[in-house]
Amino acid sequence: MLNADQLSQHYRQVRAHTLALAAPLSGEDASVQSMPDASPTKWHLAHTTWFFETFVLEPREERFKPFDAAFRALFNSYYNAVGEKHPRAQRGLLTRPGLDTVLAYRADVDERVLRLLARLDHAALALVELGLHHEQQHQELLLTDIKHLFSCNPLQPAYREAAVYAAPPKPLQWQAFAEGLAEIGHAGNGFAYDNEGPRHRVFLPAYSLATRLVTNAEYAGFIDAGGYRDASLWLADGWDWLRAQGRGHPLYWHQGDRGWEEFTLEGHAPLSHVSYFEADAYARWAGARLPTEAEWEHAALHGGEHLQQLDDTCWQWTASAYLPYPGFRVSEGAVGEYNGKFMVNQMVLRGGSVATPRSHVRLSYRNFFPASACWQFTGIRLAR
Amino acid sequence: MLNADQLSQHYRQVRAHTLALAAPLSGEDASVQSMPDASPTKWHLAHTTWFFETFVLEPREERFKPFDAAFRALFNSYYNAVGEKHPRAQRGLLTRPGLDTVLAYRADVDERVLRLLARLDHAALALVELGLHHEQQHQELLLTDIKHLFSCNPLQPAYREAAVYAAPPKPLQWQAFAEGLAEIGHAGNGFAYDNEGPRHRVFLPAYSLATRLVTNAEYAGFIDAGGYRDASLWLADGWDWLRAQGRGHPLYWHQGDRGWEEFTLEGHAPLSHVSYFEADAYARWAGARLPTEAEWEHAALHGGEHLQQLDDTCWQWTASAYLPYPGFRVSEGAVGEYNGKFMVNQMVLRGGSVATPRSHVRLSYRNFFPASACWQFTGIRLAR
Amino acid sequence: MLNADQLSQHYRQVRAHTLALAAPLSGEDASVQSMPDASPTKWHLAHTTWFFETFVLEPREERFKPFDAAFRALFNSYYNAVGEKHPRAQRGLLTRPGLDTVLAYRADVDERVLRLLARLDHAALALVELGLHHEQQHQELLLTDIKHLFSCNPLQPAYREAAVYAAPPKPLQWQAFAEGLAEIGHAGNGFAYDNEGPRHRVFLPAYSLATRLVTNAEYAGFIDAGGYRDASLWLADGWDWLRAQGRGHPLYWHQGDRGWEEFTLEGHAPLSHVSYFEADAYARWAGARLPTEAEWEHAALHGGEHLQQLDDTCWQWTASAYLPYPGFRVSEGAVGEYNGKFMVNQMVLRGGSVATPRSHVRLSYRNFFPASACWQFTGIRLAR
Amino acid sequence: MLNADQLSQHYRQVRAHTLALAAPLSGEDASVQSMPDASPTKWHLAHTTWFFETFVLEPREERFKPFDAAFRALFNSYYNAVGEKHPRAQRGLLTRPGLDTVLAYRADVDERVLRLLARLDHAALALVELGLHHEQQHQELLLTDIKHLFSCNPLQPAYREAAVYAAPPKPLQWQAFAEGLAEIGHAGNGFAYDNEGPRHRVFLPAYSLATRLVTNAEYAGFIDAGGYRDASLWLADGWDWLRAQGRGHPLYWHQGDRGWEEFTLEGHAPLSHVSYFEADAYARWAGARLPTEAEWEHAALHGGEHLQQLDDTCWQWTASAYLPYPGFRVSEGAVGEYNGKFMVNQMVLRGGSVATPRSHVRLSYRNFFPASACWQFTGIRLAR
Repeated sequence: MLNADQLSQHYRQVRAHTLALAAPLSGEDASVQSMPDASPTKWHLAHTTWFFETFVLEPREERFKPFDAAFRALFNSYYNAVGEKHPRAQRGLLTRPGLDTVLAYRADVDERVLRLLARLDHAALALVELGLHHEQQHQELLLTDIKHLFSCNPLQPAYREAAVYAAPPKPLQWQAFAEGLAEIGHAGNGFAYDNEGPRHRVFLPAYSLATRLVTNAEYAGFIDAGGYRDASLWLADGWDWLRAQGRGHPLYWHQGDRGWEEFTLEGHAPLSHVSYFEADAYARWAGARLPTEAEWEHAALHGGEHLQQLDDTCWQWTASAYLPYPGFRVSEGAVGEYNGKFMVNQMVLRGGSVATPRSHVRLSYRNFFPASACWQFTGIRLAR
Repeated sequence: MLNADQLSQHYRQVRAHTLALAAPLSGEDASVQSMPDASPTKWHLAHTTWFFETFVLEPREERFKPFDAAFRALFNSYYNAVGEKHPRAQRGLLTRPGLDTVLAYRADVDERVLRLLARLDHAALALVELGLHHEQQHQELLLTDIKHLFSCNPLQPAYREAAVYAAPPKPLQWQAFAEGLAEIGHAGNGFAYDNEGPRHRVFLPAYSLATRLVTNAEYAGFIDAGGYRDASLWLADGWDWLRAQGRGHPLYWHQGDRGWEEFTLEGHAPLSHVSYFEADAYARWAGARLPTEAEWEHAALHGGEHLQQLDDTCWQWTASAYLPYPGFRVSEGAVGEYNGKFMVNQMVLRGGSVATPRSHVRLSYRNFFPASACWQFTGIRLAR
Repeated sequence: MLNADQLSQHYRQVRAHTLALAAPLSGEDASVQSMPDASPTKWHLAHTTWFFETFVLEPREERFKPFDAAFRALFNSYYNAVGEKHPRAQRGLLTRPGLDTVLAYRADVDERVLRLLARLDHAALALVELGLHHEQQHQELLLTDIKHLFSCNPLQPAYREAAVYAAPPKPLQWQAFAEGLAEIGHAGNGFAYDNEGPRHRVFLPAYSLATRLVTNAEYAGFIDAGGYRDASLWLADGWDWLRAQGRGHPLYWHQGDRGWEEFTLEGHAPLSHVSYFEADAYARWAGARLPTEAEWEHAALHGGEHLQQLDDTCWQWTASAYLPYPGFRVSEGAVGEYNGKFMVNQMVLRGGSVATPRSHVRLSYRNFFPASACWQFTGIRLAR
Repeated sequence: MLNADQLSQHYRQVRAHTLALAAPLSGEDASVQSMPDASPTKWHLAHTTWFFETFVLEPREERFKPFDAAFRALFNSYYNAVGEKHPRAQRGLLTRPGLDTVLAYRADVDERVLRLLARLDHAALALVELGLHHEQQHQELLLTDIKHLFSCNPLQPAYREAAVYAAPPKPLQWQAFAEGLAEIGHAGNGFAYDNEGPRHRVFLPAYSLATRLVTNAEYAGFIDAGGYRDASLWLADGWDWLRAQGRGHPLYWHQGDRGWEEFTLEGHAPLSHVSYFEADAYARWAGARLPTEAEWEHAALHGGEHLQQLDDTCWQWTASAYLPYPGFRVSEGAVGEYNGKFMVNQMVLRGGSVATPRSHVRLSYRNFFPASACWQFTGIRLAR
């Protein structure tokens, strides 16, 4: 675990990075919510600050006085133990406090946390570290949420220029792994979320993993072959989802004069923004399947050198539902609401994306979203 | 009708007043939409400008070039004849163009309209005048919409200080009118919307009208007497509406330590923000009824000196459905969509409110809203 | 008003006619509800009986004992004053009591009502008469509701053979009426609902009425001319309704090999099953309008000999919203809920249909439905 | 596998049992659908027959002629490969064909299947056997669906008298199992669904299983202790589900004069009709957890003699999401839609219930329902 000095340094870096991500956005951009699943940038800025104020400062600061007492409920996301919370779907109605006030809130809490840091005990330092990982998650959400907001605007504003994937990808190969007992889950002293443990044994049959992710061009082949019109390729819920929405292609794709066009759409580029339903249907069409999370983690640990795009491109849907590891127990107190209570009706994603901060990536990391979610940077690695 | 000079003067005044109304609001306040019925301030600012650009400049300006071609669809409200329109419920997602750009849009169009004005023919001047009345309607909506947005914010920001009604109102009296044929509808040369004509005869039975509006204190008596729990007082649709929402009092009222509290809640103050359902139920409870719009207009013309709060306090629900007058024909072209197409499932309101610009008030004016609407400044004048 | 003997005779006839209407239906047909607006045949059979049991027998029969105490809530439609009621949308879940039990319920109440009839005072006899008119309304609803249920069945069962309109209709002509004061509303001693009075004066401008209803062929011309794709013909609410449903033709029409096919679709046949929205749009397209209810009633009284299909073909949408006549007061007691509480968001229909019992037809009759309703036998008579 | 003679015998028994289950129901009872998840009895009777007609008779019978060509779509449940299907939520609108016709359909298909049986090859006999297991599933659904329908009727009809649990249950004990590699999945030659294989190895940590199910009295203790008001006990989705419905107790429970009353509610009786959310929350409150399906199956195989109520009382929610076993492949053809396409957003239940036919029970059986489902006979066995 990081000591107080290291943590102080890390704190400054993470907090500054959030501000840098918000810098290209106007107060208006930062206030609006484009769907209940997404949150305004301003809310991300404030909620990550609320985490430190509520869990670190409030119980430890002498003569604690909140920056603004109303923020306690206003910027609570889902912690029932903390009390009231502003309804999720109404986060975009909070034109006040303005962005300026939220930035002042950040500065105030930063100063107080950094002042307090040297005097914190081990448990409190662990909370600060948790808060920074929490903030890094919101950094990624900030980007996916603003991408969604901008996609709703007919003017199609861009957050930044798209990456260019000029060169064709290497041919897809299969990396094989033999059957046997494997250990998965977080090991060692570094930080991990509670849901990454306990480390435990699983029996894995022999399997192979694709060495890279599926590309846009490969997925376009699935569409052109009638993939969205063939019920036999889809899970029943996926077929219903697709038909209820009239969906015939991934989110953010649209047919242009030169075929499929996305913000960054080049055939070479890795496919992104697919739901689990789409990933599962594509895999079936391709005569393959999605890996389980145990397969993915075992392969990443023991065959990682052969696997490209492991954690810097797209989160990779696994065939595993998000469930507790054997012996899992939620943490004490409000932070115990962090992970455990979401363990139903979600699928696990592994790896990391272009939007994931490098210091936030771990091979044992268990990201999770409902099977219909597609506004995250989510792609496909095949298994068989 | 106003000549070009008068119109030029009026144009400057109306357009400046809209800016003054928006002045207390931040870019964030101006961008957010709190419900599908309401629009962001920024949208009001842009849409009223779009009206002049689309209906006045585009067909008449030499080498017309739009300020931004995308605005044609973006700020179209409901004119099908103009083409595409941005979905009403998504007006709040337009963080771009920013408030600054919209203000520049206003300045640009203003300059071009004023330059063109001297050369416009009669029909075109009439369109400009219509556009200014249109803008005055949006001035009132801007205020009611921002009031609703702020009401959704737990911090309860205030747009401006509430009016104080220190003195008790005069006792409610009844002004009587004899039966007979009356003429209603707009007369003379001044401006009026198409729906205010043709002027026509109606037969009115004898009736009486209350000399003032119902007060908050009087309405609180209705609540205290169980008015919201007695189905026999309500229209069936009103009873369903009330129960679906768990409504037990007018919008913006809440029970505080000292009884009912509203932003401006004093017993003496006139009741506002009631739906037609509430107005109708109150009238029934009070042993009275709501006036028809013909009664209201006839009384306003012939007994106006005895009637207080006629057009400067609250719009007054009438018992009349919004329907065409005999012989009504919609105007030619896109502006024909202004009024006629809404003539079903709406009730007529007469008078004017604290938020209605004085030059926008007419005794023949037919305002209209669905029976459930209560975010406008809507009150009750009794009849019997 | 009918005396006890006449009423006894009328009672037997009306009650027997309801049974005759239900005779072609199985217990299964009679139990199912195809949409919240419609009710199962069994419910109609029971509810009309409940009316007599609750309003006639219960307050007057010595040692009154209900046939089944649970029926009081089970078969209450919307009378809040009577107490609890079974939710409207769940009428189709009542497989018990079975049809046999409901028929026994009818027989039991019939016997008791007929036994009591000779001893009833004037007010009670009036209630029985009201109950019979109430039952006649449900006779028509029984037919429209079973037609809707059968239309949901891919097997397309038929209630009875369709009428044949072999001969072409007479040419549409216009019957003219001069301007002047007219009296409308029920007159005389015969039965009428409370909403048909008080009789009162209205001023009518000069107008003309079509001598017959619009035919299927004429309406097909409107469709073929793009009527359902031209927003300028429709009320805004109608256009939204049409697009939300993807509606491109009247209810029960479908494109077949030989063009439009309906159960009874022949070009000569009068158009039926259109909403107010469709009637209003057709009239606009045809360069005409719908009559007001005052115009319709005045014409029916004074030019009836020239007007065909007045009350035996389809109910005719008028341009009048359903509102109280001047001086209208609801009746005392629960039966006061019969008409008055529906006076908002409904349009008036006049005349009568093929499904209306002949003794239920009156020129002053005010039928009413929401503007979107189209499962009734509703057609179009033009005015100008 | 059963030979043709055995199968013929089994066929007669299973088909007769379905009729026996439907015998207490009227045609009306058999036609109505109380919610989209449930189906009318008549539909169950017809759909199980459709299975034999479509999958067994149609491809094999010489000069096959359907009983009624329209039934092919009408009684298809969810087999996209078979073609059109009647919408699930509208199964209750099919008053025709009547119950009598459906019974004739059954008799006709039975005669033809039995005549054909002696000449069928191995693959076809396997299809008949599958069809009988399919029918046994619908036997249980028929009972749960009719129980739900009757629960919607204020008259509270009973299908049959409730079982009496007079004696207190044995004390709950814990049966322990050591860690190690286990094999789960179907073994041997008997019938099993495709989703029960392939048999495969899993590593199980040491665990204990409760020897009996949770009782009504135990669950009432959870309610009385505030279990439905303590968010910390619930999965987030479960908490939302509970609050959206205002749920404070299991389905079919209601507070009576003598405390909780259910159709069969005695403290000694095993708890039934709980959702996964409720089972999971109860387990957390009780300081335990739900077993995984691998634990359950291993325990049932190796410690079954100590485990009561294994498969004859209630299906038991497991902590396992419904996912394919390693190496799972769906069957060829339409029957491949039987299980695989539902493998997302469902939880596995193990065992069997009072409503499960004895010949339908297997220790490898994988039942599955969404986490919110509670109209099945679903209970709780704790693990730790």
